[in-house]
Amino acid sequence: MNIREDAVNAVKKSIDLMLPENAVINALSGFYATGKIVLAAIGKAAWRMSNAAHQALGNRISRGVVITKDKHSMGRIGNFEIFECSHPVPDGRVINATNKLIDAVSGLSVNDTVLFLVSGGGSALFESPQEGVSLDDISDITGQLLASGADIAEMNLIRKRLSSVKGGKFAALCAPASVTSIILSDVLGDKLDAIASGPAYHDMSGKDDALSVVNKYSIRVRPEIYELLNRPGIGEVSNVTSILAGNCSGLCGAAEEILKEYGYKVVTLTTTLSCEARAAGEIFACIAKEICATSRPIAPPCALIMGGETVVRVRGKGKGGRNQEMALATAIGIEGMSNTAFISVGSDGTDGPTDAAGGIVDGDTVSRLKESGINPQETLDNNDSYNALSASGDLVVTGPTGTNVNDVSILLLNS
Amino acid sequence: MNIREDAVNAVKKSIDLMLPENAVINALSGFYATGKIVLAAIGKAAWRMSNAAHQALGNRISRGVVITKDKHSMGRIGNFEIFECSHPVPDGRVINATNKLIDAVSGLSVNDTVLFLVSGGGSALFESPQEGVSLDDISDITGQLLASGADIAEMNLIRKRLSSVKGGKFAALCAPASVTSIILSDVLGDKLDAIASGPAYHDMSGKDDALSVVNKYSIRVRPEIYELLNRPGIGEVSNVTSILAGNCSGLCGAAEEILKEYGYKVVTLTTTLSCEARAAGEIFACIAKEICATSRPIAPPCALIMGGETVVRVRGKGKGGRNQEMALATAIGIEGMSNTAFISVGSDGTDGPTDAAGGIVDGDTVSRLKESGINPQETLDNNDSYNALSASGDLVVTGPTGTNVNDVSILLLNS
Repeated sequence: MNIREDAVNAVKKSIDLMLPENAVINALSGFYATGKIVLAAIGKAAWRMSNAAHQALGNRISRGVVITKDKHSMGRIGNFEIFECSHPVPDGRVINATNKLIDAVSGLSVNDTVLFLVSGGGSALFESPQEGVSLDDISDITGQLLASGADIAEMNLIRKRLSSVKGGKFAALCAPASVTSIILSDVLGDKLDAIASGPAYHDMSGKDDALSVVNKYSIRVRPEIYELLNRPGIGEVSNVTSILAGNCSGLCGAAEEILKEYGYKVVTLTTTLSCEARAAGEIFACIAKEICATSRPIAPPCALIMGGETVVRVRGKGKGGRNQEMALATAIGIEGMSNTAFISVGSDGTDGPTDAAGGIVDGDTVSRLKESGINPQETLDNNDSYNALSASGDLVVTGPTGTNVNDVSILLLNS
Repeated sequence: MNIREDAVNAVKKSIDLMLPENAVINALSGFYATGKIVLAAIGKAAWRMSNAAHQALGNRISRGVVITKDKHSMGRIGNFEIFECSHPVPDGRVINATNKLIDAVSGLSVNDTVLFLVSGGGSALFESPQEGVSLDDISDITGQLLASGADIAEMNLIRKRLSSVKGGKFAALCAPASVTSIILSDVLGDKLDAIASGPAYHDMSGKDDALSVVNKYSIRVRPEIYELLNRPGIGEVSNVTSILAGNCSGLCGAAEEILKEYGYKVVTLTTTLSCEARAAGEIFACIAKEICATSRPIAPPCALIMGGETVVRVRGKGKGGRNQEMALATAIGIEGMSNTAFISVGSDGTDGPTDAAGGIVDGDTVSRLKESGINPQETLDNNDSYNALSASGDLVVTGPTGTNVNDVSILLLNS
């Protein structure tokens, strides 16, 4: 067993399974439709998801509309209409593209199906405001909410009221056709009402909910907008089937299966990790020491997985990303443990403002750093994980992968 | 199952098993000696450990010398000589007391046994400098090392050279008698060379090791002291049996057994937890969510244990301790999860500068806080966990327990 090699292979293979193409093809394996199929795709992975669907279903798709981020289209897909729009701040182009998409799903019959492909960025890349509302209104109110400290759930409440597609309203526009949503989720915990603000998901919020947010933070709105906010959500949508085709849980599950095939016992602790990157690394190292000393919680050869998305508390002036910082913190904790390795990688291939996806460290990383004249603790305090792991030969570089299902972190111990 | 009640009972019972009396009585269950028995006790729990040994062995102990912290003696124990000294900064009294203790173990024969009872604080409460070295020398050099950023292992290297009892030298003074060390450990990982600077443990450090620390940090020392540092450690000590009678691993193991009896499946992740308190709480909450959503890593009813000692990063001006801060952070993460509770408690009964030992929170803690007009996140950011948990009725108060085997933190989920 080569724990470093196994770690890198397991992570790369599990990211591969979460690529837009593989996610869509897996999700379509049980897909069946009798009437017309209209493809509607939104998000940063929309082009790649649509291309995979086109390869799988070909001419069965009668019309396709794809809205993705600037520079994310990679050419023609059959006769699909492909739009690029700005992200994360939307501009006027998104309204035109969204209206084209709405047109494509209008006038369908009860036997028809809208294949709705959703990926990260879908909230900014899919918007048609309610009548009387402008994009400027939305960005003004969003700005006020942000400045007031409103949380994401409160912001979504408002956004859904002002939009004609968010909060289940897109599903209503598709009716009486049925909608099959295939979702690549970058939201930890996969709340379907939060991903792209839930265009094809129930909105059970009540009449007073949006206004109470406006009142709570003293948000200034025009009377016309006040009227729109003074309404209930759309309620249940009954014509939608949602398939989570790729998410952090799937990423961790894939890594778990692969490592089991390699002969490791595997425990997945969480797929919604969200805390400071450095502390997560310190805890991984504490667990590694426990396994070495007592063979608990599991005996080597074993692997411990956590998935999610951590944050870096910036105190220094170095270069790094959350995965590299977690790896460096773990490396310090497992110094000298020759049977131990740890990997942490962002599935999108981009960890912070660096060209690395993450780091792969082991019990000798600290001695390699010291040989290079680098003080591991000082470098960590300076948030300079990139330069440290570069010197110790411990960076993982994949290039942008085109998917984003958060990060996976794995501790590996050999017997 | 009442998860809150089970959590509190499991923690209190496991701390009880780690009290000095219970630790000594358990350790003595297999103790057998033919010749004379001399009792030598050092540390903050020395009086209570000695009293328990006296109750168990009575007149079999021919002489006893006890050195503890000021106000930690609770009266006479047979004809034992009991000394109180200052801690953590030693004063001259410690040399007199240590010399009395050395006198008691001198001139013993090969069939005799020194019962050596060691607890936290033993390093400051047991000291007789080498000839030509004063306590002032030691505190001067320790101060220089601290200011230079030397780590604890480097400080111990120097301290052991300057002492006539640390670094295995006490064991040598007891020879040819055998030494049975009964240790209550407050050092995570239980490194026997680190606890009380290892008076009865091997010191395998080499001739140049101490001097290299002096050179690394440019420490100023007198020529006589330079000579003492330019020597190897004592090497192996062959007349010692060490018994870890109480430690964080024992605390966690006891909690695990009790919770299993209550009907929970239990996983202990680590007994050397050391990271920021808040992040540990956040990770516990992430794991709780995973268990709720997927029944992994274990299905409820279940318990997840971590033992160790975390730190608080002070950013606010509130009142709290590491266990209360971890509990409040967990409470925020498990908001609304009615089947979930979390407890974190310091085994010494004192969590930070508060009269609480820790906190016990559940899925309703956040709503209780909000009803009291307390914003949980702001309170956490202000490090004001004591006042928050006081308002929500979630403090654990035990009073000082007289033992210190670090902290135990337990997440409990009901089915």
